[in-house]
Amino acid sequence: MTKIVFKPSHHTVEVEPGTSLLAAIREAGVEMDAPCGGEGSCGKCIVRIESGDHETDSLGILPDVAMKEGYVLACKTQVCEGTVTVEIPEPVGRIGGKFVDNEDAGWQIHDDLLQMQGALDPLVQSIHYTVPRPRLEDGLSDLDRLLRCMHNEGGKNGVDVPISVLRSLAEVLREDDGNVTVSLVRSPHGDRVMSVEPGDRTARHYGVAVDVGTTTVAVQLVSLTTATILATRADYNAQISCGLDVISRIHYARDPLRREELRIRALSTINNLIRKVALNHEVSLHEIRAAVIAGNTTMVHLLLGLNPEYIRMEPYTPTVHTAPLCTADEVGMHIHPRAPIQICPSVGSYVGGDITAGLLCTRHADNGDAVDLFMDIGTNGELVIGNHDFLITCACSAGPAFEGGGIEHGMRAAMGAIERVDIDPLTGTATVRTIGECKPVGICGSGMISLLANLYLTGWIDQAGRFTRSRNSPAIRIEGRRAQYVLVPESESGTNNAITVSELDIDNVIRAKAAIYSAIRLLLHHVDIPMERICTIYVAGGFGRFLDLEQAITIGLIPDVPREKYRYIGNSSLMGAYFALVSSDYRTQMFELAKRMTYVELNTNLEYMHQYTGAMFLPHTDRDLFPSVRAAPLGIMRSS
Amino acid sequence: MTKIVFKPSHHTVEVEPGTSLLAAIREAGVEMDAPCGGEGSCGKCIVRIESGDHETDSLGILPDVAMKEGYVLACKTQVCEGTVTVEIPEPVGRIGGKFVDNEDAGWQIHDDLLQMQGALDPLVQSIHYTVPRPRLEDGLSDLDRLLRCMHNEGGKNGVDVPISVLRSLAEVLREDDGNVTVSLVRSPHGDRVMSVEPGDRTARHYGVAVDVGTTTVAVQLVSLTTATILATRADYNAQISCGLDVISRIHYARDPLRREELRIRALSTINNLIRKVALNHEVSLHEIRAAVIAGNTTMVHLLLGLNPEYIRMEPYTPTVHTAPLCTADEVGMHIHPRAPIQICPSVGSYVGGDITAGLLCTRHADNGDAVDLFMDIGTNGELVIGNHDFLITCACSAGPAFEGGGIEHGMRAAMGAIERVDIDPLTGTATVRTIGECKPVGICGSGMISLLANLYLTGWIDQAGRFTRSRNSPAIRIEGRRAQYVLVPESESGTNNAITVSELDIDNVIRAKAAIYSAIRLLLHHVDIPMERICTIYVAGGFGRFLDLEQAITIGLIPDVPREKYRYIGNSSLMGAYFALVSSDYRTQMFELAKRMTYVELNTNLEYMHQYTGAMFLPHTDRDLFPSVRAAPLGIMRSS
Repeated sequence: MTKIVFKPSHHTVEVEPGTSLLAAIREAGVEMDAPCGGEGSCGKCIVRIESGDHETDSLGILPDVAMKEGYVLACKTQVCEGTVTVEIPEPVGRIGGKFVDNEDAGWQIHDDLLQMQGALDPLVQSIHYTVPRPRLEDGLSDLDRLLRCMHNEGGKNGVDVPISVLRSLAEVLREDDGNVTVSLVRSPHGDRVMSVEPGDRTARHYGVAVDVGTTTVAVQLVSLTTATILATRADYNAQISCGLDVISRIHYARDPLRREELRIRALSTINNLIRKVALNHEVSLHEIRAAVIAGNTTMVHLLLGLNPEYIRMEPYTPTVHTAPLCTADEVGMHIHPRAPIQICPSVGSYVGGDITAGLLCTRHADNGDAVDLFMDIGTNGELVIGNHDFLITCACSAGPAFEGGGIEHGMRAAMGAIERVDIDPLTGTATVRTIGECKPVGICGSGMISLLANLYLTGWIDQAGRFTRSRNSPAIRIEGRRAQYVLVPESESGTNNAITVSELDIDNVIRAKAAIYSAIRLLLHHVDIPMERICTIYVAGGFGRFLDLEQAITIGLIPDVPREKYRYIGNSSLMGAYFALVSSDYRTQMFELAKRMTYVELNTNLEYMHQYTGAMFLPHTDRDLFPSVRAAPLGIMRSS
Repeated sequence: MTKIVFKPSHHTVEVEPGTSLLAAIREAGVEMDAPCGGEGSCGKCIVRIESGDHETDSLGILPDVAMKEGYVLACKTQVCEGTVTVEIPEPVGRIGGKFVDNEDAGWQIHDDLLQMQGALDPLVQSIHYTVPRPRLEDGLSDLDRLLRCMHNEGGKNGVDVPISVLRSLAEVLREDDGNVTVSLVRSPHGDRVMSVEPGDRTARHYGVAVDVGTTTVAVQLVSLTTATILATRADYNAQISCGLDVISRIHYARDPLRREELRIRALSTINNLIRKVALNHEVSLHEIRAAVIAGNTTMVHLLLGLNPEYIRMEPYTPTVHTAPLCTADEVGMHIHPRAPIQICPSVGSYVGGDITAGLLCTRHADNGDAVDLFMDIGTNGELVIGNHDFLITCACSAGPAFEGGGIEHGMRAAMGAIERVDIDPLTGTATVRTIGECKPVGICGSGMISLLANLYLTGWIDQAGRFTRSRNSPAIRIEGRRAQYVLVPESESGTNNAITVSELDIDNVIRAKAAIYSAIRLLLHHVDIPMERICTIYVAGGFGRFLDLEQAITIGLIPDVPREKYRYIGNSSLMGAYFALVSSDYRTQMFELAKRMTYVELNTNLEYMHQYTGAMFLPHTDRDLFPSVRAAPLGIMRSS
């Protein structure tokens, strides 16, 4: 066996010789990002071997000087017999990157969305009945009496009662002289009793709405008696260390054991969040009797243990769009084992239930006349355009740039992330603002947008995102054909390394914004509607929260239309799940929306490629599309 | 700890001091009858302690001489610290009592019942589909394509597909280029896919019909493709050692752990039988995709893990009459885990699904005009009278006499059981015939009926079942007010003990036959129909197989009507289960029959008590009811 000692924790683990160091690190319970899924291509799993025999293959990613100091890629290193001591450096993107873990903190919910329309009619009803005692004359069984009582007192007919409920029915009916609380699952196929408990417990009746994002999982604890939201809590999806985006997760999941690992990771994130909110509100897990889950198609597949492999291969076929109504037991959620789990239906491989749920927070659900645009920007961008006549949707892969991925000093929007950059027009030097106003440790998506917008407006980069070679700035270092921008010098950085941005980083952001803008154009082109006809643009998702509208328009990420048309609706996926949890009207609407949406596949769409090429400039090749964007005249390279 | 050594096996077991010897014996895996449920009242658990400390309380059941030799009641004996050596004698009722364990042997199925009417439409259909490959243009999920194919090729709509099936759907659809076999569960609430497997497997599609009797469990392996019965196999219900009749089982089940023990015992009997028939016919357990189970109300409750306690207490309320359609996984049956388990519906606490299923083998199911009587005689007797206009049913407790219970030398109808007795009219001595024609070891129910009928016909007992005191017979021993009949002397017995019958034994049989006959009278009285109007009397159940019609009429067990009206239909419960397994017409009929039957509770019925008193004589107080029964004129005590 090989003993591995981890520093600085001094935690040890024993593994078979030949084990990959990344596997050993995970076995030790240490979370380590490996966005590429352990393929050795992302270079995110760097550790330093202090001592001990090992075999490694740096694949040309690590510089020689680093390798001489013992740095290796954990995914490409096998440990040998004996003791190996490994130092796991705190990665740049991790410092202070802990999720804001306070309930409700940093979690935006629009109050007006809570003014719910439609009657309160939760996925599970809790009803108090007084079941008459058995009588010799009628020869009715316990079940007969219960069903008859449900029929007489509430008109319930054709109700299913599973054997697991029947196993305690005799005692339950007699414990409090026929006083029972029945929890009834509503479904289009008929009602189903999920529990019968003694006494009147209707006041203690709860559910959870869950948003399973690729990056973030959010859980809402809801009283199903009053539809009140008791708590909202979020955490990173524990799948993150197996890949940052859906494609790398699908890649990771090719091995059935790893697929199971991903399932367990998502589940444990959800279960931990539920446990915390339940504990804080003195709700027992058994009193949580329903859940609605919204997530993208891949997240839903991984959570349900479905094989996501064919989602990423042409013709991009998921196992299901509309998953059956499951039970908590089947899914593995730690609430009442027979609690129904409603999965929000998806529309395409890359337009998932999070979007269907999200539309419940817009006018699309009201079947209005006005043509609206819904956009959820993240690693993937999902768009829906339409009104009561038509609904058309597509998804585009923006890549991880807006979440700090693929950017040398990129990080997620967490403490220490640069979220805003001002540029001195004369010197080209930057002034930065960080989340938490602490020392900068990296730059997040909104920081990159701010940087690009201001570099462009001040003329320090051109439409193609290249730094001007005609003027000198202390912040711009030109080395041959390469240029690098020093955002934060070593001395002011929280990591003691300069925070820099390369033209490659800028190019990644331009590709990301081009992917989204050209998708909007493609949809409009598809239905032959001019941009002006769009009445409201709903911006959803966590990324939207930090988005500066002007700057996003400046780089050409979103359309240059009157700003009052924009409306930020927060985590509409979670809110939609909440609506579906408490209202059958919203559940019906959700399934109707999913059916009405026409999915446009962009992966093989030539028109999309055409639009994309045009959008690969700041803000766009066609300047008429962005009349309000006016760059400063300083840039010599500007094509005007 | 206490070490217990069992003889003759020399098997040992370690238990806590103070453990009941009966519990220790069961822990050692030794089956031991305890019909009273360990109450110390049946005296069936006698063992001999060779050595070792113990505390015992014989409760006056064992004679002093036996106690001096170390005989104790295992249920009333606690072992103390140290080693205890226990001899477990082979009990009288056990010698050669092993169940006829050959398939089809000794199992009567009326061929004409197999001429099944109604189309073959099994509980689970197996259908081969060719699902088209995924296409980019339509954006359909795997599930969408499967459901569309099922709709287009077979008109199946609104089909449910559980998440467990979806987990392998992606691979299954691609393994054989869309060639799949779908198993579809039929239910009134809609169809449900229970499995999707690659390739065409429709030819390997099986089901089981199960009859769970209090004494005997029978299993039939059926090809669902052709409705062919491949094998029928039976064994004793492993619950027997926890009590012989339903009342003692319910008593035993008061403790939830013991209730679980009973569930496991019934299950293991069923699972063992299924495994054997499947193995013999090279059928994999996963290819068995449906089961229909018929059993009395208590057996069904115990098998499903429902609490049977309130069945035996006024007002005699079971948890269910109609159990929901379960899965094999929920029930614990070792066939395909998602196989549907249909439980035949019961009508009352003591008229179970075995009777409802049994009626499928009679004209009652055909809604004919003629009034017929159905009777199933065992520990309980169940009766149904009616035609298309009315169906009335009741159950009476005959007690275990017909199965050898409550009779000093009684035993079940197994090898060595006396099944027929001829009496020499002059000497009063007996000539016996045994099952298997081996040395007699005890007397079974049909033997007792034969004995009583012939003792009565030859005048050696009177109408009340008492031996004549006015004549001497070498076979009759009179001791004070007690009389004993020596059926087989010591020298000819297989147990080296004389096989005797006491007046108490005879009384038990008279009580049993009176219970049944008076129940028939009560039903006729209830609907005001004379005995003559009964067209056909169906006799069902294992007991009927050994029944001599003339002798049964002689003792007044069954009505004295033209013999051609009688029809023995074998194990109609199993046959009915088979019908329900392969035909939806029969399933529909079964549920309609259960709904149509009116249950008459005898436990609190005064008219029944009146009828019962009249039937407590041979053949009856009212001789006109049995015109063909003519006792010989020899008996001096005869009241004529």
